Amino acid sequence: MSDLKNRILSLVKDDLDGIEAALLENLHPNLDLVSKVAHHILFSGGKRLRPLLMVLSARLCDYRGDYDKTFSVIFEYLHAATLLHDDLVDGAELRRGKPASHIVWGNEIAVLVGDFLLARGLAIAAETDEPRIIKIISEITENMSQGEIHQIDRKGKIDLSETEYMDIIKCKTAVLFQGACRISAILAGAPEEKEMALAQYGYHLGMAFQMVDDLLDYTFDTQILGKKVGADLREGKLTLPVIMALAQAEPGDRTMMEKIIRDEKFTNNDFKWLVEKITEQGGFEYTRSLAFEHIANARQALELFPVSPTRDILFDIAGYALERTH
Amino acid sequence: MSDLKNRILSLVKDDLDGIEAALLENLHPNLDLVSKVAHHILFSGGKRLRPLLMVLSARLCDYRGDYDKTFSVIFEYLHAATLLHDDLVDGAELRRGKPASHIVWGNEIAVLVGDFLLARGLAIAAETDEPRIIKIISEITENMSQGEIHQIDRKGKIDLSETEYMDIIKCKTAVLFQGACRISAILAGAPEEKEMALAQYGYHLGMAFQMVDDLLDYTFDTQILGKKVGADLREGKLTLPVIMALAQAEPGDRTMMEKIIRDEKFTNNDFKWLVEKITEQGGFEYTRSLAFEHIANARQALELFPVSPTRDILFDIAGYALERTH
Repeated sequence: MSDLKNRILSLVKDDLDGIEAALLENLHPNLDLVSKVAHHILFSGGKRLRPLLMVLSARLCDYRGDYDKTFSVIFEYLHAATLLHDDLVDGAELRRGKPASHIVWGNEIAVLVGDFLLARGLAIAAETDEPRIIKIISEITENMSQGEIHQIDRKGKIDLSETEYMDIIKCKTAVLFQGACRISAILAGAPEEKEMALAQYGYHLGMAFQMVDDLLDYTFDTQILGKKVGADLREGKLTLPVIMALAQAEPGDRTMMEKIIRDEKFTNNDFKWLVEKITEQGGFEYTRSLAFEHIANARQALELFPVSPTRDILFDIAGYALERTH
Repeated sequence: MSDLKNRILSLVKDDLDGIEAALLENLHPNLDLVSKVAHHILFSGGKRLRPLLMVLSARLCDYRGDYDKTFSVIFEYLHAATLLHDDLVDGAELRRGKPASHIVWGNEIAVLVGDFLLARGLAIAAETDEPRIIKIISEITENMSQGEIHQIDRKGKIDLSETEYMDIIKCKTAVLFQGACRISAILAGAPEEKEMALAQYGYHLGMAFQMVDDLLDYTFDTQILGKKVGADLREGKLTLPVIMALAQAEPGDRTMMEKIIRDEKFTNNDFKWLVEKITEQGGFEYTRSLAFEHIANARQALELFPVSPTRDILFDIAGYALERTH
């Protein structure tokens, strides 16, 4: 584990313990089966990054209530719901080293427990009694489903543009990060400028987080990856490095690249050649530089708040999001 | 079409037109594909019973605002979302005589457009700015997913009890009817006794509606049915007529009945024999009498309201729900 990650974890240990307890307390399933499946997806080594962002953002806004951890679970439940549905949609076999829920219990149960977690997240949002919070959360769920649909609709399409890619990762990832940070400001009754600053922080962090995730798909070390090399590409998901490289490549290379991308069963050598081409065209460097820019913007948004240990942690979390590239 | 259905339809024509327009206006999809799939499931001859119940209940409570039709779409969107997910879960090929969405667009899109409609329904609920309404609606979605999970979990289980059956149909059907009627009272600012009376009406109507639906599965006329004879049973879904008959049958008959139920490929003759046994044991009569009782309770709940054309229509809708048995 990196020093940065270690430092963050030691500083937020109590918060993470509180979040863990709240995740367990607020599930309220009627049926043993729901409980089992929900536990399988919820308690299998998730980073709890989204609820943690909400708890820290609330502290940054001097929130004094007792419900930050309770409401923070909304973001983990919504996240878990999309993981259940996405793994099924993508036909993924593993999730965090364990068999995916749809493999263990079947598609039916994965769909319906996902629905339950979505509903549970929204039910807890309703408990805030804050129509603005509820609206933001229901909009997030709309955006997330549309982002996923957009990605699936454009699966295998060589002409996916950078703009479309940005829109997809915004919807499927950044809006949830944004919501987690923003809602805490509303809950704390913070002034609008603070709410907007935290929304900016969350948005940029989420964009960078997804870009780094997409870069990781080009890692050759399956040990680090925990899944197949080039999994996104095999599923027909074009991400920024390859989108950028395709746009820049000479016609001959471009044709060859397209051929590999279209071939679901491309060999490791094909993939290596593709990675070389992407490197040549600067696709990885470009993606990393955009992620870096988003992190810089995220950190800048924090400048509105006076220096504090909590601000430092949020600053460090932004650094950690980038560090995952290496 | 029956006289009763004709009479109801002529009296609510304007309401249905308004609901139809609202269903179209409030969808707001970002993507053409979402629009296409949502239209396929939403505009394919649904009865609009749930939004209609909400509009009529609001009128019964002297609602004077302009948003009854807008908010009524919540119940059709949630209903459509569950149809998308349930058809996929059940492997159904047809829905209202058209190929099911998961057949046309694949499981991925059916799951995600279902998520979108669920989120859209909750987003519109948030627009009411009424935390109580939002809580009720998010609880409904929780209940619906748990009802479906319960049914799937007990699929093919011969020992499903009447109590479990009642709990399943309450969650998967009655809570949505109940919510549609109850929420209109809250929206209209009606006193609690009216809200509770409408909740009772909706609950009992929903219970009867599902029981009648389950009776229809034993109809031999595929023309009326629009799906395979004994479809529920083939999917391993035990409903009240057969639950009751199994509980009453002599050991010999019971063994034979269980054998047929367990055999997914039972013949039409097997099914005929089973239907005879259920008839002998009074399973159909018992189910019909319980449905009748629920309808009587639904109508009784309306007695709280003074006589009015709207009350008459709600009274007639209860009658129509029963009439579907014949």
